[in-house]
Amino acid sequence: MPEVKWWGEHDGIDFPHVVMSQQFSQKQLETLFRLTTFLKGLLVKGMRVDWLKNYIISTLFYEPSTRTRFSFETAALRLGAGVIASENAAEFSSAIKGETLEDTIRIISDKADLIVLRHKREDAAIKAASVSGCSPIINGGSGTWQHPTQALLDVFTILEHFGKVEGLKVAMVGDLKRGRTVKSLAYLLSKYKGVEIIFVAPAIAQMSQDIKEHLVENKIKWSEEDDLLKVAAKADVVYMTRYQLEREESPEEKEALKKASESHIMNRNVVNTMPENSIVMHPLPRVEEIRWSVDANPRAKYFEQAKNGDYIRMALLLAILNPSKAEELMAMPVKKAA
Amino acid sequence: MPEVKWWGEHDGIDFPHVVMSQQFSQKQLETLFRLTTFLKGLLVKGMRVDWLKNYIISTLFYEPSTRTRFSFETAALRLGAGVIASENAAEFSSAIKGETLEDTIRIISDKADLIVLRHKREDAAIKAASVSGCSPIINGGSGTWQHPTQALLDVFTILEHFGKVEGLKVAMVGDLKRGRTVKSLAYLLSKYKGVEIIFVAPAIAQMSQDIKEHLVENKIKWSEEDDLLKVAAKADVVYMTRYQLEREESPEEKEALKKASESHIMNRNVVNTMPENSIVMHPLPRVEEIRWSVDANPRAKYFEQAKNGDYIRMALLLAILNPSKAEELMAMPVKKAA
Amino acid sequence: MPEVKWWGEHDGIDFPHVVMSQQFSQKQLETLFRLTTFLKGLLVKGMRVDWLKNYIISTLFYEPSTRTRFSFETAALRLGAGVIASENAAEFSSAIKGETLEDTIRIISDKADLIVLRHKREDAAIKAASVSGCSPIINGGSGTWQHPTQALLDVFTILEHFGKVEGLKVAMVGDLKRGRTVKSLAYLLSKYKGVEIIFVAPAIAQMSQDIKEHLVENKIKWSEEDDLLKVAAKADVVYMTRYQLEREESPEEKEALKKASESHIMNRNVVNTMPENSIVMHPLPRVEEIRWSVDANPRAKYFEQAKNGDYIRMALLLAILNPSKAEELMAMPVKKAA
Repeated sequence: MPEVKWWGEHDGIDFPHVVMSQQFSQKQLETLFRLTTFLKGLLVKGMRVDWLKNYIISTLFYEPSTRTRFSFETAALRLGAGVIASENAAEFSSAIKGETLEDTIRIISDKADLIVLRHKREDAAIKAASVSGCSPIINGGSGTWQHPTQALLDVFTILEHFGKVEGLKVAMVGDLKRGRTVKSLAYLLSKYKGVEIIFVAPAIAQMSQDIKEHLVENKIKWSEEDDLLKVAAKADVVYMTRYQLEREESPEEKEALKKASESHIMNRNVVNTMPENSIVMHPLPRVEEIRWSVDANPRAKYFEQAKNGDYIRMALLLAILNPSKAEELMAMPVKKAA
Repeated sequence: MPEVKWWGEHDGIDFPHVVMSQQFSQKQLETLFRLTTFLKGLLVKGMRVDWLKNYIISTLFYEPSTRTRFSFETAALRLGAGVIASENAAEFSSAIKGETLEDTIRIISDKADLIVLRHKREDAAIKAASVSGCSPIINGGSGTWQHPTQALLDVFTILEHFGKVEGLKVAMVGDLKRGRTVKSLAYLLSKYKGVEIIFVAPAIAQMSQDIKEHLVENKIKWSEEDDLLKVAAKADVVYMTRYQLEREESPEEKEALKKASESHIMNRNVVNTMPENSIVMHPLPRVEEIRWSVDANPRAKYFEQAKNGDYIRMALLLAILNPSKAEELMAMPVKKAA
Repeated sequence: MPEVKWWGEHDGIDFPHVVMSQQFSQKQLETLFRLTTFLKGLLVKGMRVDWLKNYIISTLFYEPSTRTRFSFETAALRLGAGVIASENAAEFSSAIKGETLEDTIRIISDKADLIVLRHKREDAAIKAASVSGCSPIINGGSGTWQHPTQALLDVFTILEHFGKVEGLKVAMVGDLKRGRTVKSLAYLLSKYKGVEIIFVAPAIAQMSQDIKEHLVENKIKWSEEDDLLKVAAKADVVYMTRYQLEREESPEEKEALKKASESHIMNRNVVNTMPENSIVMHPLPRVEEIRWSVDANPRAKYFEQAKNGDYIRMALLLAILNPSKAEELMAMPVKKAA
């Protein structure tokens, strides 16, 4: 059924846009990760295909992020698509003339076959999806709310390492209050049975109430801790995050955050107390919260994790724009990544 | 005659560059619009061809405009060209080191096969065309003077809707003094017999004298009005424009402009007094001058108009860089856009 | 031997990265220039090939330079590669969040098959090369230290004009202290026997000691002069450079530099005292140090020189990413550029 987008069964705003991590059913995730594994085995560096050669993808970034933008653009180019990019839409687009985001999206959705949007407003991706006509929107990060492709690559990385997500103990460490990646990840993890989440943060940076409620509703066990060393000793995954001082305006809060950040450092000592088969993750960029000495530890997964982002994004672009090709690939025997 | 660029008969600066809207003969316009119609029927979203695959196009923007830049880049990519882009040449190029525009263009014209230039200096495109050697320049907007591709897409939109331009009543509303789109459009409309133009603006924002003189010379009837409602009732086209407060430095002028802008709003009331087959246009971005409630009115043409820009630019790029392909397409039976 | 990168015999940091101009052996230079000549004859404007169609090249610019960035991107696109570009990485990348350059390069080297880096830190390219894994780094300019592709295009331009480099008298004029192009060029020229270098600059802008020592070690004759007219009369090459006032922070130094710059101007008078077969070069952008009246003089080579940069960069990209194709081309009879 090449006419049917195989990875979507909904007909609401969550299809075929990628707006929030909780939009995916477990079956969709399974298929998406299978496609990702396939592409990771196939589309190594020094390799491009023409499966999206008929398409133009726009990266429209109102917030700076060379990393995420490059990841989407790499995914587009490796699949043969053309790219129109704005690395600083906030300053250079008509936004400064007072145009609404909706008008901008209406215009750009006539040009691009798919738009990757990064914006500081929490509801930006949802608003964009409501006016973009037949051009899908992928949320490349919206405010402190969601960063769904990050959550997808996180879960993919866990799945790739452990072969499963169910039953794992995941510690989230750092600035959980301001971090959108941990929120998106928590939503996504709540779809897997027996997962246990431990939030390791000082009180001023703890996870927000809505996430905790969501976990309770989904019968996911969670707890709050402050002692990283103790938690690390029993966690399967320690997911470190950066203290986002730049999102905090009050100087006192900033100072308090800075101070708090010093008690949650992943260093040689902490990493060595972790179980043997456990992993350290980080959405990057990191500053001081993971010491360089940890990089060579076999548990360090954060660079592999970043790389997985390129493949998750390839899988999403292909699934959305050329689902029949995706189906064709899925029908082939799965090829494991090295 | 594949060696001859079919759409140009001049040998001055106006060929093969696109510098100003008045450079085109009526015959050239006819051919260009026919090609545009053809491409609009053919090159829908999700479709790219390789007719310009041998070419590299540079978008060199000294003034911010994601919209216009994306339009040219989309046109280039849909036709298979490569793109080298600068979204903020004013700040990042050698201009800040004191290099002249002429030197910059000399260098970039060795790299790119065609340059789209947007610049705040009125004579930028002309100066660029004088030193760019065999690389054509397309004026993507120069100061408050000209924006010829905007004028072309405007006339194309009118033609597409009415089937003709001759004899139409066109009201231009808003900041006519600072608006380059209305100037370029007035020049272009002056080529069509029986067109009548009504300038609706407060005295401090009225159309400049040179345009009025040009219209008189070309026997185009024009008048000035202040009452939008009255004008709307008899116009075929109401062309709204934004008050460009950011181009005005004096705070008093700014305040006066802001005040004036409030009396020329296209709202549900105004649009409903317009004749049935009439249309509302706007070069976009809009701010408050067209209310959102107008968007759903069948007379609202501004989003279609923006979309037409992509096709006009495809037609120009193809005509300039691969005229024999353009001729070949023109020889085929015309395919009407949906 | 398609598996062996023919232009590199080293196994240190200088291979296969392009970090500094002195890394090349004379044999490598010869081969590279032969490939450049070949590509210049073949890949004229309006021509693209697909020899790098499988590759993605990243231009990562922490310092503004539309010119150099466009040159690399043109080279990449003419050879069929895809490009992911950042024209202002300093402001928009994770650098502002405190990420180290090494982390950034680790991430981007997973996406791009080759990274062109421009950075204000002198050791940026070396640091990048140490962590970029199998993605080669090309130094697109680092601080005031090196700009090796500029030096390569300079020597290529000299070679193209004179048929040899050995034994030529090269005058370097202007801000030699702050200019990285003259440093890179001096290193490269030191590989050719009998070259004589004359540094023409005021005391506050004279060439640094390390370069002079390097020349002495390599038995290259050098001298310092202050009288441009006298030097011009006997030089084969007069290599003008811009006074980089923006790199000087002290207002007094700035003023002194500005004053000094006025005594080293290439004007009609100076150029006409130069020997008949001599040439004037400049890395561009120029400001006042070469008068426009010189542009039409047959000795003016600076625009041709800039154009050669595109071909040197094509040769480097091809040699690094597709050496077997480069070898195949090299086996064909050399085609001279027009």
